[in-house]
Amino acid sequence: MKRIAVLTSGGDSPGMNAAIRAVVRKANFHGVEVMGIYHGYEGLIEGRMELMDLGSVGGIIQRGGTKLFSSRCPRFKEDVYQFRAIEIMKERGVEGLVVIGGDGTYRGAVGLTKKGFPCVGIPGTIDNDIPGTEYTIGFDTALNTVIESIDKIRDTATSHENSFIVEVMGRDAGDIALWAGLAAGAESILIPEEQYDIDDILSRIEHGVSRGKKHSIIIVAEGVMPASELAKILKEKANITTRVSVLGHIQRGGSPSARDRVLAGRLGAKAVEVLLEGKGGRAVGIKNHQIYDYDFEVAFTTKHKADLSLYSLSKELSI
Amino acid sequence: MKRIAVLTSGGDSPGMNAAIRAVVRKANFHGVEVMGIYHGYEGLIEGRMELMDLGSVGGIIQRGGTKLFSSRCPRFKEDVYQFRAIEIMKERGVEGLVVIGGDGTYRGAVGLTKKGFPCVGIPGTIDNDIPGTEYTIGFDTALNTVIESIDKIRDTATSHENSFIVEVMGRDAGDIALWAGLAAGAESILIPEEQYDIDDILSRIEHGVSRGKKHSIIIVAEGVMPASELAKILKEKANITTRVSVLGHIQRGGSPSARDRVLAGRLGAKAVEVLLEGKGGRAVGIKNHQIYDYDFEVAFTTKHKADLSLYSLSKELSI
Amino acid sequence: MKRIAVLTSGGDSPGMNAAIRAVVRKANFHGVEVMGIYHGYEGLIEGRMELMDLGSVGGIIQRGGTKLFSSRCPRFKEDVYQFRAIEIMKERGVEGLVVIGGDGTYRGAVGLTKKGFPCVGIPGTIDNDIPGTEYTIGFDTALNTVIESIDKIRDTATSHENSFIVEVMGRDAGDIALWAGLAAGAESILIPEEQYDIDDILSRIEHGVSRGKKHSIIIVAEGVMPASELAKILKEKANITTRVSVLGHIQRGGSPSARDRVLAGRLGAKAVEVLLEGKGGRAVGIKNHQIYDYDFEVAFTTKHKADLSLYSLSKELSI
Amino acid sequence: MKRIAVLTSGGDSPGMNAAIRAVVRKANFHGVEVMGIYHGYEGLIEGRMELMDLGSVGGIIQRGGTKLFSSRCPRFKEDVYQFRAIEIMKERGVEGLVVIGGDGTYRGAVGLTKKGFPCVGIPGTIDNDIPGTEYTIGFDTALNTVIESIDKIRDTATSHENSFIVEVMGRDAGDIALWAGLAAGAESILIPEEQYDIDDILSRIEHGVSRGKKHSIIIVAEGVMPASELAKILKEKANITTRVSVLGHIQRGGSPSARDRVLAGRLGAKAVEVLLEGKGGRAVGIKNHQIYDYDFEVAFTTKHKADLSLYSLSKELSI
Repeated sequence: MKRIAVLTSGGDSPGMNAAIRAVVRKANFHGVEVMGIYHGYEGLIEGRMELMDLGSVGGIIQRGGTKLFSSRCPRFKEDVYQFRAIEIMKERGVEGLVVIGGDGTYRGAVGLTKKGFPCVGIPGTIDNDIPGTEYTIGFDTALNTVIESIDKIRDTATSHENSFIVEVMGRDAGDIALWAGLAAGAESILIPEEQYDIDDILSRIEHGVSRGKKHSIIIVAEGVMPASELAKILKEKANITTRVSVLGHIQRGGSPSARDRVLAGRLGAKAVEVLLEGKGGRAVGIKNHQIYDYDFEVAFTTKHKADLSLYSLSKELSI
Repeated sequence: MKRIAVLTSGGDSPGMNAAIRAVVRKANFHGVEVMGIYHGYEGLIEGRMELMDLGSVGGIIQRGGTKLFSSRCPRFKEDVYQFRAIEIMKERGVEGLVVIGGDGTYRGAVGLTKKGFPCVGIPGTIDNDIPGTEYTIGFDTALNTVIESIDKIRDTATSHENSFIVEVMGRDAGDIALWAGLAAGAESILIPEEQYDIDDILSRIEHGVSRGKKHSIIIVAEGVMPASELAKILKEKANITTRVSVLGHIQRGGSPSARDRVLAGRLGAKAVEVLLEGKGGRAVGIKNHQIYDYDFEVAFTTKHKADLSLYSLSKELSI
Repeated sequence: MKRIAVLTSGGDSPGMNAAIRAVVRKANFHGVEVMGIYHGYEGLIEGRMELMDLGSVGGIIQRGGTKLFSSRCPRFKEDVYQFRAIEIMKERGVEGLVVIGGDGTYRGAVGLTKKGFPCVGIPGTIDNDIPGTEYTIGFDTALNTVIESIDKIRDTATSHENSFIVEVMGRDAGDIALWAGLAAGAESILIPEEQYDIDDILSRIEHGVSRGKKHSIIIVAEGVMPASELAKILKEKANITTRVSVLGHIQRGGSPSARDRVLAGRLGAKAVEVLLEGKGGRAVGIKNHQIYDYDFEVAFTTKHKADLSLYSLSKELSI
Repeated sequence: MKRIAVLTSGGDSPGMNAAIRAVVRKANFHGVEVMGIYHGYEGLIEGRMELMDLGSVGGIIQRGGTKLFSSRCPRFKEDVYQFRAIEIMKERGVEGLVVIGGDGTYRGAVGLTKKGFPCVGIPGTIDNDIPGTEYTIGFDTALNTVIESIDKIRDTATSHENSFIVEVMGRDAGDIALWAGLAAGAESILIPEEQYDIDDILSRIEHGVSRGKKHSIIIVAEGVMPASELAKILKEKANITTRVSVLGHIQRGGSPSARDRVLAGRLGAKAVEVLLEGKGGRAVGIKNHQIYDYDFEVAFTTKHKADLSLYSLSKELSI
């Protein structure tokens, strides 16, 4: 291979730039050129790409977001656009593609690979919900953003002896809620993977009050219900007044943490290695500290599982 | 005077602890003891107070919130509770009171002073809306929290070329929105002091698009309207889709900035000086870098004015 | 067991408070009381301990340092002091001890265990150098502190086109230098585990210059040599002027990262479980995401190994 | 005027990018073009400049360092280079120049103005030492960086009951030491403006010890002496062991604070206004919250004075 390409797609996550940098530098290290494709699959279809040299990825390792921009591209599900994409890449001398994103991003890569164009996927999403890898790029940074926010909210909660419900990202995966809740010492954590129990939440608040602790912090993953809805339930069921904070999009941004940058570096380099070995249709991931590659199918046919031992631990530590 | 007391009341703000520390240390420096009253006026009525020595304010200068807790105490408007408060303080040998908070807090202090008990007020609120002082303790920290959040949101906005509406605190005062908007390079800023102009907002977004900049950040003070309402208006009027972020209570917390800590130290020390001079019914503030004291009436009879030159500047710089 | 004790010893690390909190809460969860011993083994010998209830560990999960204070206690190597420590603990009804610290801390715990008093060790050190566990509490926070500092130094390095040598902690273990160097995109990394090669460092600087990049960041672990010495060598060998930054003690402090808090929670809980099972002479650690316990001997007889695949990766990515 | 230019020179400071952005946007607002000169006066002599449009200053308001690079250029003192600079600017149609930097930077601008080319200076330095302006761009950010570092050091100091000497920037001006020392609650502060008194430092440490506080933090401005020298003195005079931390170049970097960004925006806009009014030989500054311009001579003939009331306050609050 003489030239490969790289794109980012779907929701952005901190560390995507570090991954792009690693792809470019690792490829250059092996004498392979890299084209950067702008705006994900949408830009690919339209041929928006540019050669990236070492300088083009200078000073981006610490930046949030993605230098290559991202987008959602529903029409890329259609074969016609996938064929066009392959045609365009071939015209530009591109022989393999690295995609960085979530499972939606992987589906596009599967389509291209099936049509004969080798693609490798790097897991970039704050939700940590890609099967086959223990961590995704951006998850660690998002966790730190969430706990810094909760630390601030706790200042106010403690001073006023108020209870707060903090809503964090996670439609199907409770990883952010679970880890951040444990790290922030939340009294209750609600995740999509576990049935919540209003009586347990109430008894935890009341137990705190009984020992003189009048504030309480409850974390809820957006996939369970909006924080405002939970507030309404607590009000109706037990006349408990809570304040609500929806952390929202600040969770996607920010300078990536050390872990996310190292993970991005390792996965980016591995993705290039896989392509250079002539393999396609593979995702790269981390398992027991080892970087490895696996068939995209694993990402579609298995289900990501949050570490529920953290859930029981959080219950024991938040008595 | 041999002994004074200090309390925090109303919404908490970063730097209140630094102010408490300064009150205790400055008083101790002059050989005067300080009682810390817990939970604001509510705790005062109930006699919840304790002697604070130098060690009791060790390691708090950098902490958000208030070590003395805060509360709202509507019944303190009634004379009967004010008389009770004075009685309790006299029993404990307290001869003067420093209150830290916003204008609601000042009203209680006026009542006590009128009944013969000297009180001095320190402006502690993130809203920067106390007449007579150019800055309040907590404003600078809140600004930095807001711009760090917007910097994160910008990562995502840029990567996805989305527009965001960010709602910040400020019911009557637009200071947070104005300063943070200017500091974050927001395209439009909506504050209670100025009539907003939807057409201007739209033309700014469109002008950005016309020169290739597809994302835009709009800051709205909560006193103008909820961010979600503005989003609806933009959608209806011009079919522009925006994402919404309500920063909420994270704005009240966090370790105070250098400016807020220095301001808290200076105002706390001044408050003690004023009491020791035998004066009551005074607020302390900063004007042209000088710390001074003024009659509480100034805080009630004049109106805080945001620096609207920043508003016109922001319009010129966000073309 | 009805009552156990906990102490922190040796160099402090961010997350020690989160570990103390977990020990207290997990023990309380099982109906076991916890005595907090102040000032490590020194305080133990002198009987400085206090019962810790749930409230005593409230609001500490996010704090750097250790609420129980730490100290070095060379005389604790002597049997006479270990016997005295056991006597004191028995007098207070303490039946087991959790120690948090590095390998020096573990040695004291081995002595006590051999004399019949069950002890369990939790790895708390930023250096990540305890054999038997993949991560120690504080390492992740230290990494993030280091990369934030390097990100700041890079601003200046880039603007002025200067080269910087940044000295980080790590006498025998290069983990901080290695991970932080990779995460910060350093041009060269010097660690105790690998022989450095001045010619390679020089050729990396020169290669950067040849492609127009005039600044360069070199990370050196303190165990290799002081940054100032490396600066002298570069000056003498190639007339290259570098600026030097010794990060120093800021690396030990700060609010713990999400990872460190979660790790502290898991290890703290496990340590209590091990004691309650009647086991002593054990360290707790993490391996492949599983929390487990192992004989203290492992920590003394094996050697921690940095992941040197990161070292070769850093060389490939910093071309 | 149809076209002006802007450069940054001397030591960089956080907020320089925000100032560049303001210059470009304010000029564009008035229909005036801006050339960005790279590498300060050195680049000017060599004609390294480029037209900056609105997009060229997008996404830089939050970045440390300077997008235009900086350098020191000793030969610019010579008339021949100043004439060459003017010639080059005239060739490119540039009619006025904005320089951002410290007093060395201002001297070059004075030379150009005297030769008939109008220049305006913006104070960009972390040292806060430019006469005629109360604040310089970068000072506030540096303060916050310093206190965050001291907060981390305090974690370790408290846990180990050690004393620390922290060396901060400031050769002739003690502003950083003074403000940061007050904000961080340092026990002693040594600044170039005041004779230090070792006995006072010792008695403060001892007084702390006598009331059970065994750690102490001393801030020393680099202009007084190196921290290591002070440590030696304390060791020799009173056998007090201290640890030393030299904060160094991290003080120059980092994302600018809200205050610095707002100040940069205001000063940048004012500089353009002054040039457009046809004035040269002026510096812009802030006094009592008003932005104004003044003759460069003020910066050379008067002396910056630190607010020494903060010094006495710090002594009263650190008893």
